[in-house]
Amino acid sequence: MSEWREISGNVTAAKGYKAAGITAGLKPSGAPDLALIVSDVPAIAAGVFTKSCVRAACVDFNRQVLQSGVKVKAILVNAGQANASTGEEGWRNAVECAELVQKALGIEEGVMVASTGVIGKQLRMDLMRPGIVKVAEALSAEGGDNAAKAIVTTDTVTKSIALEGTISGHTIRIGGICKGSGMIHPNMATMLAFVTCDAAVAPALWQDMVSRVADNSFNQVTVDGDTSTNDMLVALNNGQSGAPEITDAASPEAKQLEAMLTEVGVYLAKAIARDGEGATCLIEVTVSGASDQAAARQIAKTIVGSSLVKSAVFGRDPNWGRIAAAAGRSGVYFDQNKLNIHLGEFVMMADGSPQDYDRNAASNYLKNPTVQIAVSVGDGDGVGTAWGCDLSYDYVKINAEYTT
Amino acid sequence: MSEWREISGNVTAAKGYKAAGITAGLKPSGAPDLALIVSDVPAIAAGVFTKSCVRAACVDFNRQVLQSGVKVKAILVNAGQANASTGEEGWRNAVECAELVQKALGIEEGVMVASTGVIGKQLRMDLMRPGIVKVAEALSAEGGDNAAKAIVTTDTVTKSIALEGTISGHTIRIGGICKGSGMIHPNMATMLAFVTCDAAVAPALWQDMVSRVADNSFNQVTVDGDTSTNDMLVALNNGQSGAPEITDAASPEAKQLEAMLTEVGVYLAKAIARDGEGATCLIEVTVSGASDQAAARQIAKTIVGSSLVKSAVFGRDPNWGRIAAAAGRSGVYFDQNKLNIHLGEFVMMADGSPQDYDRNAASNYLKNPTVQIAVSVGDGDGVGTAWGCDLSYDYVKINAEYTT
Repeated sequence: MSEWREISGNVTAAKGYKAAGITAGLKPSGAPDLALIVSDVPAIAAGVFTKSCVRAACVDFNRQVLQSGVKVKAILVNAGQANASTGEEGWRNAVECAELVQKALGIEEGVMVASTGVIGKQLRMDLMRPGIVKVAEALSAEGGDNAAKAIVTTDTVTKSIALEGTISGHTIRIGGICKGSGMIHPNMATMLAFVTCDAAVAPALWQDMVSRVADNSFNQVTVDGDTSTNDMLVALNNGQSGAPEITDAASPEAKQLEAMLTEVGVYLAKAIARDGEGATCLIEVTVSGASDQAAARQIAKTIVGSSLVKSAVFGRDPNWGRIAAAAGRSGVYFDQNKLNIHLGEFVMMADGSPQDYDRNAASNYLKNPTVQIAVSVGDGDGVGTAWGCDLSYDYVKINAEYTT
Repeated sequence: MSEWREISGNVTAAKGYKAAGITAGLKPSGAPDLALIVSDVPAIAAGVFTKSCVRAACVDFNRQVLQSGVKVKAILVNAGQANASTGEEGWRNAVECAELVQKALGIEEGVMVASTGVIGKQLRMDLMRPGIVKVAEALSAEGGDNAAKAIVTTDTVTKSIALEGTISGHTIRIGGICKGSGMIHPNMATMLAFVTCDAAVAPALWQDMVSRVADNSFNQVTVDGDTSTNDMLVALNNGQSGAPEITDAASPEAKQLEAMLTEVGVYLAKAIARDGEGATCLIEVTVSGASDQAAARQIAKTIVGSSLVKSAVFGRDPNWGRIAAAAGRSGVYFDQNKLNIHLGEFVMMADGSPQDYDRNAASNYLKNPTVQIAVSVGDGDGVGTAWGCDLSYDYVKINAEYTT
């Protein structure tokens, strides 16, 4: 029995959050490109960042904020320039942006910054300076939708969710927005996600939850292995629900909060995969029987990231040999005689041997908006899921014809 | 000064080798699909095989042959069915094929087998049995071209090379053929390469050379990370040149032989990349300044394997930010402030900062048949090169519209 339900809303669904999204002029298209998310009271913050050693200035800046342990009141997000591969000037610009937010809001608490867009171009500070003033003035409790619109790049839809539950007799809410098109992007491979929550929780416990949830959701979306220079998930928690602080990781309250956070993460991750550039369907791969969860996740992510598998799905070709081959090269050892592959209800391979199946029916199954692939590799307890999309002509078109 | 030169020919260029390629009927197209390479005298054999744990029967079979230490007289190669994911029946078929070759040739020495084609389909033994008799009857010293034709799948050209040099006053020759289209394949991700040589060399030294050469050539071709179930390089050496046996790895003779073998490997590897499915150009990425060769090779392979980089090259977009991003996520740590990126003669990034360059001229450079990307990441001695091709509409077409 779920102790929570989905409600309409996003990063302003939880108590004590405002947001805004405006056009600062950073995108040549004139679409909204600057967002601000603010907590009325100082919030604890947790984050997960790209592992790339070529990192945007905002990634290094936010890591410093988290390491300092200060409470956070605001997240500024721009689209248009990624502020990655921009050297010292890029770093100074990130610092100035955070200071401008503090000034505009009249606060001294921490500010986090995030960027997405073209790599190797400096932030348009001439536009950012007035833009930050303008976006701060636009803040409202209904501004989450505008924020969601201002952080997208090649996304075809905005992505947001909110959940409401009860913890210790108090109504708590958690909401999130993200951007990303599931696969790599023209100049902007970036996945950005922002989550706000009003439950109270010990900071270290919040970071643990956020890290685990990232591993099971955002980190399981295929971006062609193209970890961006800017990828980040930042989650604020301001305790404004009035619920008592959760301090015990083993408590039912902690488990419920993590389950809700997981639902938010998985929903947003799937939304990214489904909106993959040129995608015609969502592919969900679940691996079981691995030695542990990490092994299962790795195999699942390898399968869903295989161009071989992706293009077969786009061609509606139930070519399960490609699934077997991808599993085999994942880097996780398993006994190929224990390999089982299901495509929807169709059994393609059992205990390492090919099975007879209705080829036409299996091809038709691949016309569904969501394609499910289930693989088992042995007798272990490890289960993991990954999400991706098919590889279409439009993917190449979007990525080849985009011009810097 | 090179002590060798390129000559016309292939696997029958070295002394004491015959080959043949015929149509056994394994390919629905009726194209040649069965090849046999034979040494007149027992040869030492070395091999490098797929690291996938989902392996074709031929891979396991050949590993056993090598481990047994027997000398080898023949390699049988079929295209059409990969004999991978075929369970016990697949293994029995591989064993039977080798036995049929022994019978057809009247030999007791080792026979190696290789397959490429659809995964999950049993070998058509009804066609293999008469085919093996027929291909053995067709053997000749001029049969190398026919063998090269019979091992291809989606390749648009056959790939072969031969070199002649002098070692210890004796003329020695080394030749090779391979198949593979550089990127992943419809049902047949396989890269197969076969090399023959008439120099005499100690078996362990030959295996060491072959392994090192594979690391610097075939293993540096991008196949989208899609290690196949069937990948293999097998190299025979029969000593028929009359040159004295090379036993000292540090000798000039050993170094020359390895240099010749490297040239064969790199030539064939580049031929695979250039013939990538849908490719319009060859991309060569050289990384320097890494801590060691393996690190440099890993960064180079990550860059050339990035769909982001590949599609930018196809779009003639000098989008160097994608190169920086790919280098950063390669798994090799480096200081991003020491990153330098050259595209041909154009300097795109120096010491971590973007540089001004002529965008139109750089875009024109990308219209060359070979595109060279040079990246340095620090002050180390490690240098490595990888080869790949661009990502085009035709790639998706070939892979999505192919039907099992």
